Amino acid sequence: MNTQKNQALQALKTSKGQIEAIINMIEDGRYCVDVSNQIIAAQSLLKKANLLILQQHMEHCVTEAFEHGNGKEKISEIMQILAKLTNK
Amino acid sequence: MNTQKNQALQALKTSKGQIEAIINMIEDGRYCVDVSNQIIAAQSLLKKANLLILQQHMEHCVTEAFEHGNGKEKISEIMQILAKLTNK
Amino acid sequence: MNTQKNQALQALKTSKGQIEAIINMIEDGRYCVDVSNQIIAAQSLLKKANLLILQQHMEHCVTEAFEHGNGKEKISEIMQILAKLTNK
Amino acid sequence: MNTQKNQALQALKTSKGQIEAIINMIEDGRYCVDVSNQIIAAQSLLKKANLLILQQHMEHCVTEAFEHGNGKEKISEIMQILAKLTNK
Repeated sequence: MNTQKNQALQALKTSKGQIEAIINMIEDGRYCVDVSNQIIAAQSLLKKANLLILQQHMEHCVTEAFEHGNGKEKISEIMQILAKLTNK
Repeated sequence: MNTQKNQALQALKTSKGQIEAIINMIEDGRYCVDVSNQIIAAQSLLKKANLLILQQHMEHCVTEAFEHGNGKEKISEIMQILAKLTNK
Repeated sequence: MNTQKNQALQALKTSKGQIEAIINMIEDGRYCVDVSNQIIAAQSLLKKANLLILQQHMEHCVTEAFEHGNGKEKISEIMQILAKLTNK
Repeated sequence: MNTQKNQALQALKTSKGQIEAIINMIEDGRYCVDVSNQIIAAQSLLKKANLLILQQHMEHCVTEAFEHGNGKEKISEIMQILAKLTNK
């Protein structure tokens, strides 16, 4: 597995741990603003993981697709992701 | 626990399950675009959980703070969350 | 007019100038990536203006509404803005 | 000029008109929540314009760059835009 995928995995595992902690915070009746800040931190990690996955996708899959003459469908897939990301 | 906190807990538990599934997808070498779409879905659930937590905060803690004459510090806390959220 | 509203006005006037420049860039056939970066810069200014408007709203209108016993409807308005902002 | 650039231009011109109207709203002392909602509407139009510009960039410039063997630098440019967009 390449470096970017490994970094994405680490970010996802850390965010999973954060979410488990957030669940405990809510069950323990912790202060809402602290809970909200932790949710925002977990969102940042997911965003980081997503960018790493997309970077590795662009540098490998998309580049290879263009080398094999079928780049256009990759472009359409990426535009769909881009449209979703600008709404996140 | 009130309804909004319960709904936030459910969203967080579902997003935790999604992140576990995403970790498996990456370890199994699944297609990057599918991984990316799943990460975006998990982000949406975190966002939903955060809005529920903030709604319950505004309707209870902030409202009570104003009734006890110390609403101003709550406003400052919420502005910090708002500033972070517009950058997510 | 208070300081926050003045700062919001300045940000909006600057962003208007940026958008005029972006329109010229497109009409002149300038490079798409440069156009995209300028659009992102204009979006940042709008976001800044919005935060300033909301800050002044929270510190003045919302605070006064609570002092006059009708804070609850303000909370509902702010939650609607918050829900929209998390989707921007 | 192609269709996507024309649609982007239209969105930018409409958003410029909206921002002029927002400036007047603030100068006339209009209600903050209405101002905030109009700013969010203008942000949506900028986002739409940006997606159109990026789509045309991906379908034309990036595709041509790969056909001429220099696609890799385009990928790096797009990743920078993607990173910025996920923070908007």
